[in-house]
Amino acid sequence: MSLFHRKKEISVQTIRRLPQYLRIFYNLHTYGRELVSSTTLAEETQLLPIVIKKDLQAVGAPSKLRAGFKVAGTIEVIEKFLGWNNLNKAFLVGAGHLGSALLGFAGFKNHGLEIVAAFDTHPEIVGNSLHGVRVYHTAQLASIIERENLKIAILTVPAEAAQGITDTLVAAGIKAIWNFAPVNLTVPEGVIVQKEDISSGLAELCAKLKR
Amino acid sequence: MSLFHRKKEISVQTIRRLPQYLRIFYNLHTYGRELVSSTTLAEETQLLPIVIKKDLQAVGAPSKLRAGFKVAGTIEVIEKFLGWNNLNKAFLVGAGHLGSALLGFAGFKNHGLEIVAAFDTHPEIVGNSLHGVRVYHTAQLASIIERENLKIAILTVPAEAAQGITDTLVAAGIKAIWNFAPVNLTVPEGVIVQKEDISSGLAELCAKLKR
Repeated sequence: MSLFHRKKEISVQTIRRLPQYLRIFYNLHTYGRELVSSTTLAEETQLLPIVIKKDLQAVGAPSKLRAGFKVAGTIEVIEKFLGWNNLNKAFLVGAGHLGSALLGFAGFKNHGLEIVAAFDTHPEIVGNSLHGVRVYHTAQLASIIERENLKIAILTVPAEAAQGITDTLVAAGIKAIWNFAPVNLTVPEGVIVQKEDISSGLAELCAKLKR
Repeated sequence: MSLFHRKKEISVQTIRRLPQYLRIFYNLHTYGRELVSSTTLAEETQLLPIVIKKDLQAVGAPSKLRAGFKVAGTIEVIEKFLGWNNLNKAFLVGAGHLGSALLGFAGFKNHGLEIVAAFDTHPEIVGNSLHGVRVYHTAQLASIIERENLKIAILTVPAEAAQGITDTLVAAGIKAIWNFAPVNLTVPEGVIVQKEDISSGLAELCAKLKR
């Protein structure tokens, strides 16, 4: 039972801003700060104080009247909301440049994600380790997913390979796919796909440039 | 004078979906299709027909009663809206894994962006070409920006280097920064920063997983 059912639906926009708040709260916590105002958070994030207040109240961040949000308590509710208080095992398919960049992103462990394996088809890469993660041949996908009981896949393969790999992943029982390939995947109901589209960010930038 | 001033403000969500529509319309155009219904677009995108209708009407996509949107005309209005009918020269700072992945993304030229130079400090990389783009030393940033009259920077440096580089870019007259470093940049008013935060996508995925 998640917050989604207990409270009113939290917007995607709010969810996407949570990691940014979390990073700031971690920092404040390191420096021993116990409270922080939305005005201070606004300076850090360049967001409006009212947006910050609404976001944090939506996830139930504890606050103190006229003093701001409680640092430790807010970290706890955001982590719990995102499930980042536990580590989920994940693996990556496609260990090219983008895949390597993601494997090198040290932040994942703070974000509830432990990448335990990578897969590729290139003979030069298979058998190596990248940022401490072993690269297996894609032919071993189904057996390793089953053996390790993996549920989350990060997909960084070329567009033309993405649907084929997805079919293999779904057949092997994967529950969530974080898709970096520039293609819409077809999956059965119940399988979650989170699509990252680099051109969405570029569209935002270009729209701002034209304003 | 942009659409932003002539019509009511178009939401960030809509803007972020435009590249996805554009890809589908390019495909339809290749196959000689002249009209497409929002129902067909809904199957392709897994979005609701009403969302698609609102998005496309917001940018002024031409349509034919009970037959759907005009393919060629819709491509034209989206490209114009995003400024993707012209090529903007851009450059990339930080030619590591993520930088290389972006340089290898063939899609940019279809998205109004021509990456004309890359910058790094590593002696092994400086002087080479990556995906056909020459890598210069970061010390040459200011002079090359001025010489080539560059306005758009793609920032793929480590977090700790990002603000320093940004100050150099701003001093050299850069107007827009597409920031992939996990840090909030401080820039003077008038300089556009578009932040890509990998953990925002992960937060969305995790929130869906917990539902």
